[in-house]
Amino acid sequence: MTKANILLTPGPTMVPQEALDVMAEPIFHHRTPQYRELFKEVSENLKLVFRTSQDVYTLTGSGTLAMEASVVNFLSPGDKVIVVEAGKFGERWSALAKRYQMNLVQLKAPYGKVVPAKELEKALKDNPDTKAVFATLCETSTGVLFDIEGMAKETSRTPAILVVDSISGLGADRLEMDEWGVDIVVTGSQKALMIPPGLAFIAISQKAWKLNETAKCLRYYADLGAYRKSLADWDTPWTPALTLVLALKQTLKMINSEGIETIWKRCARLAELTRSQMKSIGLTLFSKDWSNAVTAINVPAGVDGKKLVSTIRDKKGYTLAGGQGDMDGKIFRICHFGIVSEEHITGVTQVIKETIEELKAKGPVKV
Amino acid sequence: MTKANILLTPGPTMVPQEALDVMAEPIFHHRTPQYRELFKEVSENLKLVFRTSQDVYTLTGSGTLAMEASVVNFLSPGDKVIVVEAGKFGERWSALAKRYQMNLVQLKAPYGKVVPAKELEKALKDNPDTKAVFATLCETSTGVLFDIEGMAKETSRTPAILVVDSISGLGADRLEMDEWGVDIVVTGSQKALMIPPGLAFIAISQKAWKLNETAKCLRYYADLGAYRKSLADWDTPWTPALTLVLALKQTLKMINSEGIETIWKRCARLAELTRSQMKSIGLTLFSKDWSNAVTAINVPAGVDGKKLVSTIRDKKGYTLAGGQGDMDGKIFRICHFGIVSEEHITGVTQVIKETIEELKAKGPVKV
Repeated sequence: MTKANILLTPGPTMVPQEALDVMAEPIFHHRTPQYRELFKEVSENLKLVFRTSQDVYTLTGSGTLAMEASVVNFLSPGDKVIVVEAGKFGERWSALAKRYQMNLVQLKAPYGKVVPAKELEKALKDNPDTKAVFATLCETSTGVLFDIEGMAKETSRTPAILVVDSISGLGADRLEMDEWGVDIVVTGSQKALMIPPGLAFIAISQKAWKLNETAKCLRYYADLGAYRKSLADWDTPWTPALTLVLALKQTLKMINSEGIETIWKRCARLAELTRSQMKSIGLTLFSKDWSNAVTAINVPAGVDGKKLVSTIRDKKGYTLAGGQGDMDGKIFRICHFGIVSEEHITGVTQVIKETIEELKAKGPVKV
Repeated sequence: MTKANILLTPGPTMVPQEALDVMAEPIFHHRTPQYRELFKEVSENLKLVFRTSQDVYTLTGSGTLAMEASVVNFLSPGDKVIVVEAGKFGERWSALAKRYQMNLVQLKAPYGKVVPAKELEKALKDNPDTKAVFATLCETSTGVLFDIEGMAKETSRTPAILVVDSISGLGADRLEMDEWGVDIVVTGSQKALMIPPGLAFIAISQKAWKLNETAKCLRYYADLGAYRKSLADWDTPWTPALTLVLALKQTLKMINSEGIETIWKRCARLAELTRSQMKSIGLTLFSKDWSNAVTAINVPAGVDGKKLVSTIRDKKGYTLAGGQGDMDGKIFRICHFGIVSEEHITGVTQVIKETIEELKAKGPVKV
């Protein structure tokens, strides 16, 4: 496997050279004016991506840590929560809610579908004691986009907060945290922010901070009150993954220089190109409710989906994502955020076409 | 502040060039055979540093996350625990125990002192229902070394497990996890493992895993059961900070090629050199119970300790650590692990001498 593999997975995504370069510079200490200046710039620039005037907190950990932080900092065991789920990452919200002994109401749709906002309207009416609604912007496992704007309209009318996993969506799909009234937005570093995995981010509305005052779930490393106190001095309560913060300074500069609205449009164009390219080689798409972050494509009949992905990765120089869980071998996924270009999409399309033909020529898949 | 600052802080420490270089290479995906091969090598090589035949788990987060994991995975609210503390990081064990509603017994000594193992012997006799003892190998805030071997003798005779924060000590001070009978050893990436911050590590004895079966503290991201399950496939439950794992492969190669026992001796020589150099310029040491990881030195009378550290950092090319908490301005600290050399120690000694003279010449400190 060559290191120059073109990475088209929905995270980690390819890291721009400017960001790679700074990670190889000699390290410095984080309890210094130099770090606070860096962290201030990064924290301010993150707000432009989150479309919020609220502070954005940087945690050292994966996106799952920030998801957990969104549960334990705002709720108590026994609280009623609604989870909107139709895929692996929606299921993670339910797993977290169960682990923390919440009173869980699940609004489910099958993989590849979405749950319409009007179902949430009804669920909130039926459950007026709901403290929080957990949803997903782009469900990475299936590539569908949920109607977060519509859901925020519903939660805004109630005491419940809306918590959105936008780990793969933020920076690719439109999300207006303040304008729509989303209370908590969570993302990770290795998606549209274009740096390696290891950082997670969370932005919090005043409505959510109010709920924080009564939250009884126990927490320490993920205690956002400590992060809030530290951020007042452009600092973090625990040692940060500073090489990743350095890389983030570079990618945020690129993102904000292009402009987030322009990036949304670029991702939409690339997503559209991906779909038309896949159709042009006779493939069908797994869903209709498209995210601009990732597209899921059905593996054609007679082809081993796992073999398709591993052959393309190990012999053809492109890394695609396979299906997760029950979808393993049935779909593959291509991302369109970060530094993915039209050439990457058209290039991988030819490779997919060829590889499918090669695999078919070797005979049918054993069942 | 120049980027070529010689970093003599007890973490982050300087990162060897071989490790810096790999972090600037194009990124790849972590759910691949390539990553599993890397992670297997790293996980196996970590055992040699931990001096254990048990698995070592890699968490994406700071050392504090691994400390929290050592509490929540093995205990339940109300459990009796003993914390041995004499500094900022010992206090963190107590803070964690309080946060998770443990029944806390504290064995305290003042900053700069240690708690002898015989005090633990008595405390365990007085508290036969103790589930866990939390201690520190090197107390980074003061540079003292605790008698972990002696403490392990005491806990081995009881049902209690011994949990050791060796975040700054591991790889500098002798620690024999299996031979001494230490149950849980925790460390971080930016100390003697010589990579940037962002990873934490934890090794767990079978006695501790037994306790895990009844632990009722709620946990998700830090749930070590999930890490145990994943490690069987050389994988992690959540997305790992993979550039740091790549860097770790390089530094572990260096560490295990030199040999951990040789490294302990080298750190001891450098620690001794540091102490004699400091005495040679008329300075006094903060403590007697030396760690080989870090030395704490008293700021001389009439000198502003904060100004001393900032002047040396901003104008003289060396980053030292100041004092933490109550010690701020009263001591400064120099580490001797990683790629710190004799030349760095003798070089910084001259710089400290000059800077003290310059600051004294400017007149006495305002009180």
